[in-house]
Amino acid sequence: MTNHIGLFGFGVVGQGYYEIAKNDRLALLPKTIVVQNKNKERDHSLQFSFDPKDILDAPCDIGIELISDPVQAYDYVSSLLKSGKKIISANKKMLSAHLPELLELEKIYGGSLLYEASAAAGIPIITCLDCHFRGDHISQLQGILNGSSNYILSRLFQDDLSLQEAVKLAQENGFAEADPTLDINGSDVSSKLTILSLHAFGKYIPEGEILTLGVQHVHAADVALAKSLGLKIKLIATAKQTPQGLNMYILPALVGESDPLFLVENEYNAAKITSQNLGEQFFQGKGAGSLPTGASVYADLTKVEKGYAYSYDKLNGQKINPQSPHPTSLDAMISADSLEALKPLVASAPIHQANGKYWAVSAISTAELINQIPAIEANKVSVIALNNVLSKEDALAQIQRQETVSLK
Amino acid sequence: MTNHIGLFGFGVVGQGYYEIAKNDRLALLPKTIVVQNKNKERDHSLQFSFDPKDILDAPCDIGIELISDPVQAYDYVSSLLKSGKKIISANKKMLSAHLPELLELEKIYGGSLLYEASAAAGIPIITCLDCHFRGDHISQLQGILNGSSNYILSRLFQDDLSLQEAVKLAQENGFAEADPTLDINGSDVSSKLTILSLHAFGKYIPEGEILTLGVQHVHAADVALAKSLGLKIKLIATAKQTPQGLNMYILPALVGESDPLFLVENEYNAAKITSQNLGEQFFQGKGAGSLPTGASVYADLTKVEKGYAYSYDKLNGQKINPQSPHPTSLDAMISADSLEALKPLVASAPIHQANGKYWAVSAISTAELINQIPAIEANKVSVIALNNVLSKEDALAQIQRQETVSLK
Repeated sequence: MTNHIGLFGFGVVGQGYYEIAKNDRLALLPKTIVVQNKNKERDHSLQFSFDPKDILDAPCDIGIELISDPVQAYDYVSSLLKSGKKIISANKKMLSAHLPELLELEKIYGGSLLYEASAAAGIPIITCLDCHFRGDHISQLQGILNGSSNYILSRLFQDDLSLQEAVKLAQENGFAEADPTLDINGSDVSSKLTILSLHAFGKYIPEGEILTLGVQHVHAADVALAKSLGLKIKLIATAKQTPQGLNMYILPALVGESDPLFLVENEYNAAKITSQNLGEQFFQGKGAGSLPTGASVYADLTKVEKGYAYSYDKLNGQKINPQSPHPTSLDAMISADSLEALKPLVASAPIHQANGKYWAVSAISTAELINQIPAIEANKVSVIALNNVLSKEDALAQIQRQETVSLK
Repeated sequence: MTNHIGLFGFGVVGQGYYEIAKNDRLALLPKTIVVQNKNKERDHSLQFSFDPKDILDAPCDIGIELISDPVQAYDYVSSLLKSGKKIISANKKMLSAHLPELLELEKIYGGSLLYEASAAAGIPIITCLDCHFRGDHISQLQGILNGSSNYILSRLFQDDLSLQEAVKLAQENGFAEADPTLDINGSDVSSKLTILSLHAFGKYIPEGEILTLGVQHVHAADVALAKSLGLKIKLIATAKQTPQGLNMYILPALVGESDPLFLVENEYNAAKITSQNLGEQFFQGKGAGSLPTGASVYADLTKVEKGYAYSYDKLNGQKINPQSPHPTSLDAMISADSLEALKPLVASAPIHQANGKYWAVSAISTAELINQIPAIEANKVSVIALNNVLSKEDALAQIQRQETVSLK
């Protein structure tokens, strides 16, 4: 065990990994830690470098990239792969954007790249998808993949907080960034779904191609309606094989109590995988935090040391080609503050007024909806997928139950 | 991919593996299949051998052992390990009894042994325990590890069947053996807990040392009482680290709706792992069946091909020494048809008569209870762990609620 390990970044995840390594018998600690900010207060017992060359040009065997800037992360990771090194990364934005090139570099130069911590933090979901489904056909993957959003939804449902209050509490508890945009608008989830789908289906769908709505427009009226039916709303990422192609979408969705996703609360993440041989598999664990994320980095480190590499079985040896998801139609409950904001989204579905809002239940096309996202965000329209929990008729009846005025 | 694979056994699991291999691009099919029974009707397109030497003395690289007889299985597996071969086994009885010797053989002769299918069928729980918790400390493992028992409990709770009817239905649906004893008395679970605990805690506790009660004495009155409180009864295997040592027990236990084990129904299995770094991780999947079990065998095969071997990190490089679990005290609800059967188990706890049975709520010592198992089985005493779901006082109040006569 004389591997020379170089670490880029010493933030929340880097410190989590370091803490775990320090206390483990194997003590797979970095020999060099490169950080960016010279003025930051740091642990005085550690030596830091500010020059990436101290890793990139050094005789290092394993590089660990745990910085936040995806552009710089790509530079480091691609440069190390070009030297045939073993690399661990947790940078979901960078990975989801560059996996095709990185896998090509891995192949050409004989290095290897692991990234368990990039999706669902502590859950070993990438490893499981990569090595437990050989000879199997995964038909669907559904997940709760953002700890901040899930924490916020738990506060809405359990504590009757407003979205603003819940976001503030998530920040105070370290489950959301100072700028929580990427968390609550679902962008973080689409990066993860891109990564997971490559392993689950052998398809590379760039995250910009995935219909993605976050939790930022889930309103108190939606929560009240779901609660009155014993349901919850969760931010669900779905990738589903159909004979026509892979459907993919990330939407707040109704979840019923018989679904294991129903019990996933707070910063926990989960993934539900349906396959031909295994039926339904379900994985749940912490989706955020220094130690859970650091633990996945450390697990990767022990694996990469032993020569473990992802097999990307579902690619069947083919080169990665970026694809678009196949459009589909979903039933959803849609509400907005104004008739004008709602109308373009719901085609000919009848519109009802209740609880100070305009509501409709309609089939929506993922292909059309993705073009409407700027308008949805500008007008704070709430779109909640029915997720086969309620029929359109039942959802409509529930809205009408609380209805005051019906509009033609 | 010119590995020569030899397969022992072509029963439910063997056929599941074969089916998966046949349809996979890698086609990791056995070159030789050795079976025992010459008179059994078999697939005519396949060639079978009846002589184990066709694998044991052949230039085979990988042996797969999927027979039911643990004695013969040990012969095959140990013999192949002595030739430094790579072996996959699903024989939980054999493995739980012989892991110390087998690991020794693995080390001496340089072979390797994988056995994902031996516990929780399709769930990759052994791989996850073995490679995702390095540098972590697992404090507790709780699982539903027997598909037949869980299927039976689902029928008691969902369909109001009697235990006898539920067992019959489990057999008819292929979830229980013709002789269901090892399934319903929990013996199968203790084999699995022995195997999982070696990876989770680095401790080898022979299954005979584990307090094990099955579902065979869960009575309609228990089900009625649990249901009236919105609770379920599940057969829960527990291994728990304490400063004094490892507690281990397998008992029917109350489970509340906030516990992910609450939603595990039918032939599904699950494991809940609590650790210092990762908090609570939860895995759920099919715990029985030809394809789910065969899928784990096939996953092992693709791993062993690439040189993957278990790391047994938690052993910290130490030799395996059989240990006893550390005794502990558990709160339980105990009931029997006669006062005489109940009294020796409940010390000084007050006894109540209700629903035609005698009941008590008492702390029980795992060390004492293990000695009482013959009497418990002979007298069909029901022992249901409260599992921190109800306090002793609340459990007693619930029994008294349905009480007719109170005895001093």
